Amino acid sequence: MHLNELNLPTTAHGRVNHGPTLVIHGGVGTILRTSFPREEQEQYLEALRTSLRDGFRILESGGTAIDAVEAAVRYMEDSPFFNAGKGAVYTIGGNIELEASIMDGSNHRASACTLLHHIRNPITLARTMLTTKPPVPHVFLGGAQAEAFARDKELEFVEQGYFYTEKRWKQHIEGLEYPPSNSESKGTVYGKSVPRDHDPNPMGTVGAVAVDREGNIATATSTGGRNNKWDGRIGDTPLIGSGTWAENATCGVSGTGNGEFFIRYAVCHDVASRMRYLGESVQEAAATVVEGLRKVEGEGGVVAVDRYGEVAMPFNSPGMYRGYIRADMEPQVFIFGDD
Amino acid sequence: MHLNELNLPTTAHGRVNHGPTLVIHGGVGTILRTSFPREEQEQYLEALRTSLRDGFRILESGGTAIDAVEAAVRYMEDSPFFNAGKGAVYTIGGNIELEASIMDGSNHRASACTLLHHIRNPITLARTMLTTKPPVPHVFLGGAQAEAFARDKELEFVEQGYFYTEKRWKQHIEGLEYPPSNSESKGTVYGKSVPRDHDPNPMGTVGAVAVDREGNIATATSTGGRNNKWDGRIGDTPLIGSGTWAENATCGVSGTGNGEFFIRYAVCHDVASRMRYLGESVQEAAATVVEGLRKVEGEGGVVAVDRYGEVAMPFNSPGMYRGYIRADMEPQVFIFGDD
Repeated sequence: MHLNELNLPTTAHGRVNHGPTLVIHGGVGTILRTSFPREEQEQYLEALRTSLRDGFRILESGGTAIDAVEAAVRYMEDSPFFNAGKGAVYTIGGNIELEASIMDGSNHRASACTLLHHIRNPITLARTMLTTKPPVPHVFLGGAQAEAFARDKELEFVEQGYFYTEKRWKQHIEGLEYPPSNSESKGTVYGKSVPRDHDPNPMGTVGAVAVDREGNIATATSTGGRNNKWDGRIGDTPLIGSGTWAENATCGVSGTGNGEFFIRYAVCHDVASRMRYLGESVQEAAATVVEGLRKVEGEGGVVAVDRYGEVAMPFNSPGMYRGYIRADMEPQVFIFGDD
Repeated sequence: MHLNELNLPTTAHGRVNHGPTLVIHGGVGTILRTSFPREEQEQYLEALRTSLRDGFRILESGGTAIDAVEAAVRYMEDSPFFNAGKGAVYTIGGNIELEASIMDGSNHRASACTLLHHIRNPITLARTMLTTKPPVPHVFLGGAQAEAFARDKELEFVEQGYFYTEKRWKQHIEGLEYPPSNSESKGTVYGKSVPRDHDPNPMGTVGAVAVDREGNIATATSTGGRNNKWDGRIGDTPLIGSGTWAENATCGVSGTGNGEFFIRYAVCHDVASRMRYLGESVQEAAATVVEGLRKVEGEGGVVAVDRYGEVAMPFNSPGMYRGYIRADMEPQVFIFGDD
């Protein structure tokens, strides 16, 4: 069916306005169809569908983009399949260290937190920082002081054991055999030499971007970081402009991949800059930035939405867990590059 | 004298190439001539001159931009006049928490550190992270683990008392009487109601940007943050794209001011984006971004240099400690807006 037959409202420029839209990712990496059991694939796809439904239920009933992205990410944090919250990867010291950020595209407000050890849902901490009264005077809090704020707000605390999954602990132990490589190399901290016959999510992050009925855009991103990262490493996920961005005038973007590259190239802000200054569409801008990353051997992908609900989900790895949803549509979910 | 009479080499586009250039700032804020004793002004100006000479000596002898910006910032960290290293402001808990970053415009590599309590020169920690062998696999380290790395590299540790200055402790105590305001408000954490007859550096940061003989650009930024910031607050200074940016193709930028705004508007990366995508000069781009900040009540300024040694030093406060230097020139240093 041609899009115009859907009778959707159009913009002044004749562009289709898709209305409330939610797009998510659940990490990027060397995800190969050949070494990924079909039933395990289905588990991931079902988790993506549930995250999309959790977030879209809010948009459908007139809720805000901020509420929707928090809900979608929160589901993935609670799922053992993704590298955020439960199921996060371990640091080289054998610890779980979490970080997250959220941004409101209607007013350029943002909140972020990092170096967390006991917060069940880092995205809810970021969300609470964003909207609590009296307002938090800062965008970004780290470590024990961020957790003290969370305790004050009665957010849920868990012991480190809560985050444990057998798969991640095994990745941690196996990775310890390999000397760390530097941020120039493609792939995980341990570089190309790590044997991976099936490593479905070596550098995963989870993220969600939404545009709501009012045309407001919001982005949320959460992660456990990279497998066997150094303790104390802060990645791109909580850095506004690196792993997360949202502004109504251009788009919302959430990144996943080799985070050091997302920092060094200000990836998410660059997508928005290309739209703002070059007039590119969200698809052109996101695709160009992700292709630029590939050229410098930075593995990764982004999901993005503009104010009209146009979606982009480019990545330069074999696979990226991803999907989107709009009104009167089943969740559209994908894993591989040729999906 | 007209610039062309200087007989400087010109670029393919006929632009003057000023050669090795260093620009620095020592913080921005409500710095008023009327309440700033003349001899104290001269102390600040002399400190700026020394920082410029320390950095430029390296550029003049064929050294790298990275070495030059580290030296310039290191001098300001050691000076009690500026809010970085010795002389840093206190957190609301009465602690010194430092952060810094450095970026190499020749290869988009960057290093940053935050939540430091005992490192005499945070910029040297960032610099060491950038160039040590084997390479650090991460861009950004925080807290005790960043300090453990510094200890391993035998960097200089000091007790908290080293950072003490009577002026900063007095600002800390006075500020405690006022309830924190949110990040929307102009001025310090404590907003407009704080009586300030002479507060020369309420939100200071120090920064340096250089272009060397090879045309490589580097940027370094270091700070104690905002007076009476929350413990655990991470500001824009260590965030690549917010408070620091460098790429040979556009410019190097270092920011100072209300850091939360620099994060929420990706200020330093935005200056570079305008040059890259709109073809603006470094002066146009920097001025436009700083004027945009003013419109949303974000107080601050930046210093920037492009590959031809063109300098920009715009700010939207009454004053910004700043200056630049090139070959065959005395250091040019300024404090007030009408200097």
